[in-house]
Amino acid sequence: MKIIKKISTMQSISDELRKNNKIIGFVPTMGALHKAHIAIIRKARKENDIVVVSIFVNPLQFGPKEDYKKYPRPINQDLDICKKENVDFVFYPSVKEMYPYGKSFTYVEVKKFRGILCDKFRPGHFCGVSTVVAKLFNIVKPHKAYFGEKDYQQLKIILRMVKDLNFDIKIIPVPTVREDDGLAYSSRNLYLSLKEREVAGNIYKSLIYCKNLILNRKFKSIKKCIEEAKNYLHKMLSNVEHSIQYFEVYDDNLDVVNNNIDKIPKNTKLRIFAAVYIGTTRLIDNLGFKI
Amino acid sequence: MKIIKKISTMQSISDELRKNNKIIGFVPTMGALHKAHIAIIRKARKENDIVVVSIFVNPLQFGPKEDYKKYPRPINQDLDICKKENVDFVFYPSVKEMYPYGKSFTYVEVKKFRGILCDKFRPGHFCGVSTVVAKLFNIVKPHKAYFGEKDYQQLKIILRMVKDLNFDIKIIPVPTVREDDGLAYSSRNLYLSLKEREVAGNIYKSLIYCKNLILNRKFKSIKKCIEEAKNYLHKMLSNVEHSIQYFEVYDDNLDVVNNNIDKIPKNTKLRIFAAVYIGTTRLIDNLGFKI
Repeated sequence: MKIIKKISTMQSISDELRKNNKIIGFVPTMGALHKAHIAIIRKARKENDIVVVSIFVNPLQFGPKEDYKKYPRPINQDLDICKKENVDFVFYPSVKEMYPYGKSFTYVEVKKFRGILCDKFRPGHFCGVSTVVAKLFNIVKPHKAYFGEKDYQQLKIILRMVKDLNFDIKIIPVPTVREDDGLAYSSRNLYLSLKEREVAGNIYKSLIYCKNLILNRKFKSIKKCIEEAKNYLHKMLSNVEHSIQYFEVYDDNLDVVNNNIDKIPKNTKLRIFAAVYIGTTRLIDNLGFKI
Repeated sequence: MKIIKKISTMQSISDELRKNNKIIGFVPTMGALHKAHIAIIRKARKENDIVVVSIFVNPLQFGPKEDYKKYPRPINQDLDICKKENVDFVFYPSVKEMYPYGKSFTYVEVKKFRGILCDKFRPGHFCGVSTVVAKLFNIVKPHKAYFGEKDYQQLKIILRMVKDLNFDIKIIPVPTVREDDGLAYSSRNLYLSLKEREVAGNIYKSLIYCKNLILNRKFKSIKKCIEEAKNYLHKMLSNVEHSIQYFEVYDDNLDVVNNNIDKIPKNTKLRIFAAVYIGTTRLIDNLGFKI
């Protein structure tokens, strides 16, 4: 396994690999690798000749009051994991290498899937994401790139960017990986206290609860199902400080669906999205299903 | 010479060429090819194994009141020129191929070199340019791309975009090519009436006039030199309807320079920029020199 810190080196390596007909699979990460990353890396390992993992905590996608500084950076542990998973190259640039002027003058703005869900509460976040992903795509030059479905809005935005800007890269979505109690793996789970961790699985349970309310036509209204699921979640989290930032239902394309469940066409793919603060830790999750 | 209309075909061809160690030079155009394009193509021909010319009148970079519809599209003539100049591939996509939804949801925004010169008068233009150039780079996958210095602000913006988004492409600026009377070649010159064409060379002459005023310290103030050069240009264009949209002096990095010529450090590269309407035709030009 080689650790590459320079953009130009990574580009030359990828050029050479492509010349030799190697198929390059790319897993962009912010490090603090956990089981979900490992599942993604393993999928990439199976489907490509070469696997490149990038580790870069991208300052551009953090708001001024967000956790950029405290975001975990266990680089040695991360590199051990990559080695063990037979990653070929870890692209691990400095902030200065990625943003020599401390910031970018150029931004990639995807104007779809915006103004809702995380974008409503994290202005600038997705612009930072699409910009750094465009950079990484131009640096790693992969054939395929892997993104987890936990960050579903991000996945949709990246898919849109790839189509609109004609990146010749296949985006592979990877289903969310969960702990036994249903908590989606996230590097931010590390922030949770033991007490908080004990109840955090209820975020996922509330998504399932909401899904069942909808599927069983317990109420006619999506809004009512959401309300009930939020009540359920508040109850399950009552022992810890918490707040629900959003709890919403969209279709698979992040379009609004009819509030009257009976009026939603059969076989429509719905997706329930939640962002929840447990203590000071913001966790997100989502669950897709067909009506 | 092959004419390619499909994005995916162009991408496969470029992949194959790169695998075979061919160096690809790319000349993006909006067609209506003239001597300046030919000079650019010839430079690309000399410096690369493969030359790709794109012909695409990009709707995204025209304002609602601009000349998108009437922009000349002499495609057969353009293809003849490309053939004669030994171009290998002409990428000639439809608007639908480039913008299947009639518009783009994704934009590349370069936030430097903005709010001045053409950007002040053509809002959205450079966003349309950087977006389509990013698309074309991902489609043609060139090693080098050629841009004329006549569109100097565009050149600076593209250079900035390439650095910021880490496109692995060398941008080659090509000096402005002029008619005998100094008029910079432009597809829009076709719009000029004979009478207008006769005096249009004075735009360039006014740039030279301004440069000499500055170099000869005729006045101490850049502003005064500009004023005098504008007076000169108005006089020379007095027989035709005209207006000067802007006439300005910046340094080579499009930064403002000290108005007091004596206070500008020696060897500073200055550049004079003008945009002039002759009749309804908007023409731009610029001239660089060292103080």
